[in-house]
Amino acid sequence: MTPEQFRQCGHQAIDWVADYLANPQRYPVLARVQPGELTDALPAHGPEQGEPPECLLADFERLILPAVTHWNHPGFMAFFANSGSAPGILGELLASALNGNGMLWKSCPAIVELEQVTLRWLRQWTGLPEDWFGQIFDTASVGSMHALAAAREAADPNARAKGTASDLVVYTSEQAHSSIEKGAIAIGIGQERVHKVPVDAEFRLRPDALREMIDRDLAAGLRPCAVAATVGTTATTSVDPVPAIAEICRARNIWLHVDAAYAGSAAVAEEFRWALAGCEHADSMVTNPHKWMLTPVDCSVFYTRRPDVLRRAFSLVPDYLATADDPRAVNLMDYGVALGRRFRALKLWFVMRSYGREGIAAMIREQIRIVQALAAKIDAHPRFERTAPTPFSTVCFRYQGTDDENRQIQERVNETGEFFISGTKLHGRFTLRLAIGNMATAQSHVDRVWELIQAEAAKLAR
Amino acid sequence: MTPEQFRQCGHQAIDWVADYLANPQRYPVLARVQPGELTDALPAHGPEQGEPPECLLADFERLILPAVTHWNHPGFMAFFANSGSAPGILGELLASALNGNGMLWKSCPAIVELEQVTLRWLRQWTGLPEDWFGQIFDTASVGSMHALAAAREAADPNARAKGTASDLVVYTSEQAHSSIEKGAIAIGIGQERVHKVPVDAEFRLRPDALREMIDRDLAAGLRPCAVAATVGTTATTSVDPVPAIAEICRARNIWLHVDAAYAGSAAVAEEFRWALAGCEHADSMVTNPHKWMLTPVDCSVFYTRRPDVLRRAFSLVPDYLATADDPRAVNLMDYGVALGRRFRALKLWFVMRSYGREGIAAMIREQIRIVQALAAKIDAHPRFERTAPTPFSTVCFRYQGTDDENRQIQERVNETGEFFISGTKLHGRFTLRLAIGNMATAQSHVDRVWELIQAEAAKLAR
Repeated sequence: MTPEQFRQCGHQAIDWVADYLANPQRYPVLARVQPGELTDALPAHGPEQGEPPECLLADFERLILPAVTHWNHPGFMAFFANSGSAPGILGELLASALNGNGMLWKSCPAIVELEQVTLRWLRQWTGLPEDWFGQIFDTASVGSMHALAAAREAADPNARAKGTASDLVVYTSEQAHSSIEKGAIAIGIGQERVHKVPVDAEFRLRPDALREMIDRDLAAGLRPCAVAATVGTTATTSVDPVPAIAEICRARNIWLHVDAAYAGSAAVAEEFRWALAGCEHADSMVTNPHKWMLTPVDCSVFYTRRPDVLRRAFSLVPDYLATADDPRAVNLMDYGVALGRRFRALKLWFVMRSYGREGIAAMIREQIRIVQALAAKIDAHPRFERTAPTPFSTVCFRYQGTDDENRQIQERVNETGEFFISGTKLHGRFTLRLAIGNMATAQSHVDRVWELIQAEAAKLAR
Repeated sequence: MTPEQFRQCGHQAIDWVADYLANPQRYPVLARVQPGELTDALPAHGPEQGEPPECLLADFERLILPAVTHWNHPGFMAFFANSGSAPGILGELLASALNGNGMLWKSCPAIVELEQVTLRWLRQWTGLPEDWFGQIFDTASVGSMHALAAAREAADPNARAKGTASDLVVYTSEQAHSSIEKGAIAIGIGQERVHKVPVDAEFRLRPDALREMIDRDLAAGLRPCAVAATVGTTATTSVDPVPAIAEICRARNIWLHVDAAYAGSAAVAEEFRWALAGCEHADSMVTNPHKWMLTPVDCSVFYTRRPDVLRRAFSLVPDYLATADDPRAVNLMDYGVALGRRFRALKLWFVMRSYGREGIAAMIREQIRIVQALAAKIDAHPRFERTAPTPFSTVCFRYQGTDDENRQIQERVNETGEFFISGTKLHGRFTLRLAIGNMATAQSHVDRVWELIQAEAAKLAR
């Protein structure tokens, strides 16, 4: 493909994207294919000769799109909804053209410095300490794994040379994301040493239980290594009491990691800054602009106030990458597993500038308002009940019938192609879960999905 | 930014990219900024209000570009040069607009299935076994860490629950990439349990030494867990004798991982398929289309013939992600640390289709030809010597003077802005290193850089 052919295809692709952003609803939100259908439609072997540029876009529309579940769709209300916003897409386009790698400052100063600058802006917008160190990973799972590795290094300076000791313990709540457990498995702490702390009636980690568990483990000769608190749990978006947890960790010199992958963005709106209360005492934290801050995946921010520990855990510089030490020339490769670093900060910079703090706060505020209004309607409905508090833009609720009936409602709604809603289990019962976060989702969409849900329930009642 | 504003900015951005692809040389390859210069040029605080679309592209050109080291430039000959090709850039553009997440098959079937299909095509193109399982990670470092975690699971089924045992050993050569050591540190094996195997005169792992080390460790009661062989080492692109290593591993039931991040792509050209000889016996392998296969970063392919072991090491399914089991509906989240998966296969599909196998093979072949012709010139020069064999498109050589003189040559060449070459230490001496891999690099560029190098050397001799 010559540059001129790229120009032509590129303009076509931009037009397709502009139309898509204007009206993603021309596609059903949930892909309507069977497993293997796309695979079977594609050639069993790659082409020997190159194919003409025009077939790429044509086949993208013909073959790929029908197999796409559209996350960038106002009816996407499953998992945590997200947004590939216009400025973010532009940023990705330019980043892929530059194709830089920010492993070292010198290998691409723009990547390294823009990452530091945008993450400083984000700290300011969310009220986090100025002096934290930040870097961008692909996912919060990977960020949390790095946090646990830093915690291990802090608890046991021999870990790097000698391996993970068998007496380290990680604490997190029963409602924490599976990535905490997975991170502990990955770094060799082991699943049995992830001690799950019970939660209160609102699905928040119980500090009293945490304190007891830690002290019991200490008495048994184990070494508490890290506590992972959650700000915005996956199922119910509950916020663990971080100030009380921080106090327990401080008194016992335990690394505090905060998983604020979802709800960290809420703090951009002043009235939701409470969500990050106590996080200033954390040792590390993750928050995902690719969830609720209009940035296309992947862009997960990892912060730590102890970059020296993280660096001790991971720095390993081969000869060919040795550079002179300059405090303003950060070498990102020293702070994690991955050597290569894509220019992820460019899209974040475009998003932050294009929306401004107020633009992002306004979207978050409005989505929370819409969902809380829905929560009130659910509360007022005689046959529905909320199954958890609704602090942000995610609501958990159920029809007062069987689990199967609730599953049936979910399936019927998803079959319309207008919406994709998810479900989870709370207190052992299946519950519907509706998470708003796409930039295009408005009051009308939430009204409509609630109508559909009520209609399906009415059918069941008949 | 409205869709219509996106359309306008997007067309401008496409024009910029098309011009850039046509002539990246209008920029100096190496950024000419001081540490902190970009940071100081940017506002200390993010904007409160959103800014108009036109300022994004304007500031990209005014502020970001001067701080960019241009990897997508024919004069980039440092590290392993790579290419952000036109079809790859188009793929990234569309992927970021869809903004999907392929954690589950259901969460976006197209992401999951296209990843399986393109990686099957790549296996065929490089002569790897049909039945391997593949997935795309961001970097080979992350892929190799997963390989070591799978090896740990295979060697010790208790590892997942109980943590990393203290008697596991990983073997890799003195010339292996630092990611092997870093991966072993990350998963808790510890740096001291990474036993570095000596290399032969051509920087290849010595199987006899490996065998002795393993048997000595076995006698000492340690548990050899994995051997990481390299196909295309970072410094000299040497190829470890994988068939002999595989035999040692097979006899002792040790996981064999192959790091073919760089040279795996060479096997797309039939006459370089020898590079992957023996890899069919490997348990896992990484190879990076984002290095030498025209795919923008990040796209690192991880293969394993034992996906069941990898899955046992990593699968952890929370309620809200539980799906029915269908062998054709792969849930990628079960095979690694990261939950979220970007649509990385789209760009790879566009690249494979746009160039075809023959197009990619032709580029690789020509770049190897150019570099081997340069190697012959170096051999013929009275004041230069090659410091390693040149099996692919990377040549290591030095001026027959002091290390400082060689460093001076490197610096002077890099100061021209036309080229970026790197250096490394071999046998304790500084050596120049020139790695060709960008799609635009032609004979003329290599002739020119060799002229510059000779001219600088001539100045030193005077």
